[in-house]
Amino acid sequence: MSKIKSLDARLFHIPLAEVLVDAKHGDHHFFELITVTVLLENGCTGTGYTYTGGKGGHSILAMIQHDLAPFLIGKEAGELETLYDAMQWHVHYVARGGIASFAISAIDIALWDLRGKQRGEPLWRMAGGAGQSCKAYCGGIDLNFPLPKLLCGISKHLERGFNGVKIKIGQPTLSEDIERIAAVRDLVGPDVAFMVDANYSMSVDEAIAACEAFKPFDLLWFEEPTIPDDYFGFAKIVETSGMPLAMGENLHTLHEFELAFKHAKLSFIQPDASNCGGITGFLQVAKLAQKYTVLVCSHGMQELHVSLLSGLPDSGWLEVHSFPIDEYTTRPLVIENARAIAPDTPGVGVTFDWEKLNDANILKSER
Amino acid sequence: MSKIKSLDARLFHIPLAEVLVDAKHGDHHFFELITVTVLLENGCTGTGYTYTGGKGGHSILAMIQHDLAPFLIGKEAGELETLYDAMQWHVHYVARGGIASFAISAIDIALWDLRGKQRGEPLWRMAGGAGQSCKAYCGGIDLNFPLPKLLCGISKHLERGFNGVKIKIGQPTLSEDIERIAAVRDLVGPDVAFMVDANYSMSVDEAIAACEAFKPFDLLWFEEPTIPDDYFGFAKIVETSGMPLAMGENLHTLHEFELAFKHAKLSFIQPDASNCGGITGFLQVAKLAQKYTVLVCSHGMQELHVSLLSGLPDSGWLEVHSFPIDEYTTRPLVIENARAIAPDTPGVGVTFDWEKLNDANILKSER
Ligand SMILES: [Mg+2]
Ligand SMILES: [Mg+2]
Repeated sequence: MSKIKSLDARLFHIPLAEVLVDAKHGDHHFFELITVTVLLENGCTGTGYTYTGGKGGHSILAMIQHDLAPFLIGKEAGELETLYDAMQWHVHYVARGGIASFAISAIDIALWDLRGKQRGEPLWRMAGGAGQSCKAYCGGIDLNFPLPKLLCGISKHLERGFNGVKIKIGQPTLSEDIERIAAVRDLVGPDVAFMVDANYSMSVDEAIAACEAFKPFDLLWFEEPTIPDDYFGFAKIVETSGMPLAMGENLHTLHEFELAFKHAKLSFIQPDASNCGGITGFLQVAKLAQKYTVLVCSHGMQELHVSLLSGLPDSGWLEVHSFPIDEYTTRPLVIENARAIAPDTPGVGVTFDWEKLNDANILKSER
Repeated sequence: MSKIKSLDARLFHIPLAEVLVDAKHGDHHFFELITVTVLLENGCTGTGYTYTGGKGGHSILAMIQHDLAPFLIGKEAGELETLYDAMQWHVHYVARGGIASFAISAIDIALWDLRGKQRGEPLWRMAGGAGQSCKAYCGGIDLNFPLPKLLCGISKHLERGFNGVKIKIGQPTLSEDIERIAAVRDLVGPDVAFMVDANYSMSVDEAIAACEAFKPFDLLWFEEPTIPDDYFGFAKIVETSGMPLAMGENLHTLHEFELAFKHAKLSFIQPDASNCGGITGFLQVAKLAQKYTVLVCSHGMQELHVSLLSGLPDSGWLEVHSFPIDEYTTRPLVIENARAIAPDTPGVGVTFDWEKLNDANILKSER
């Protein structure tokens, strides 16, 4: 293609309209968006990005600027898979997941954006071309919402045309969680897909007890019942309860995904291209999932994952996350007949409205 | 004790006298030292630190300054174990190892330094008080050294009084590695402990073949034959060859260590307090090692690990690493009767010569 001339990385703190809470990450007042624009010697540019829930953004930015950018400048941008491996090894001693996975993800997405523009191909085609739409559900960050507000939000999702919803669990007692789950199932009826997410707030034994109590409510999956590191604990929950389990948003290396596939008895895997190595990392996970016959879903980043899940054959559900990214791109997520539609523009199909991002950014006033 | 008033974090790039090479991290021209000095409201200070092989330092610094320092200021410094857990959860979404483990390690060590000064206790006592000395060996980063230079270095280690040495392997062919191994064993004789370190440059099958070829040379251990993530691959090497294996420098969370203990059939574990969660992380690993009857050794950071391995009952070998940290502290490592002696000063026993660090730092001229 052409050699990499420079990388321009930027950090934004984007405020949330209201405080969002889950069981383990506390209050979210803003989210962090880290963008990387790669400029080639031939003048082409591609933009990638990653997210955080409010911590680590400066650290990701520093790794891109000080460790990865100097390493990439002068290298051939088209050799994307080679560059991906080279980046992983370049920072390996301080990596194997964590901040490095976020930093590499952002750059990898920028390189795919360049590849798509160069080839004139949209991401859903580059990801396999199986189709241009996928199943989608709304994932709430709503642990702190009183029940009426929770139900009001669910109704709005249904009005927008979704036929799948997910709520956070992890209330002080299991019976409080069950009360909310019963109310949601009652509201949505039997035909809407319904999932719950504990953000690993339970022990294995607590999760097993919860699965027993969940049985009347026909949940499609129980997400992250316990810490993502405990692959064998996940398996024990499945063996004991028969409940379908999902995880993936906290797995950052292909090795972690492989351990999960081999040992955790998952029904659904939820990689996130913003933290599992970008599009290259996501497609590696998807390939492995096929081998282990686990259904590929996604976590967050719906504006990009819509193309990946649409393009992959036999994919699962797209999570439509609560962070209001649609306000800052030129193409808000399109839903038709309860399915999310992938953009058809060459590249990754996510174009930021830089003016809006700059206006919303609360970092400058903090400094 | 007292509340935390401020954290002062600094990054140094310290040049190496010569280029050091291993099989997977490429050339080392300098190493990074990240220091954190914690100031309490009562005026006491404690200093902790971490290292890298030359990448990630800015990222570690950014996480300390932007994510961990604001979180810690105003909190009670004496509740060290509580703060440790709280830091892990605070950055969990971008952590589970990687940069966060290095950042938390540096802060944790500073808090232990404060605890020791407060109690008037040296680290070897706080770590268990079993003794004040431990076995020690020299670990070379010498893959690029021609054989005469390699042997000359080994001779110098023996002259300094060491009775254990380790070399890097991973030459283009196994027979070249064997030639070097044979020459070193020939030089040191049968009574000196001798280990090799492949820095995960081999596949499992290559490692099994290597173990067969190593048999005549009575190696104490074979370190990181393959990638640290492949716990079951390690086990296969042990089952097939009977070779004692060691690893740990690339494991950053207690969950990773637990997977290694349960599945990798290790004979030696080598945690590094600079990247496994500081002294709190190291002691957690040591406790787990006891449960699984694996001998606790260490990687790098000998000026601090000497106190941990001395204080722990039944510990293994201290690695004396090639980074010339002794030039920048007020107490170079003491070796007596082939054993390393722990410092007896209250705190962690590592005091930097800030003037020398500032003079040596090549970062300022780079910027
Ligand atoms: Mg989730
Ligand atoms: Mg080593």
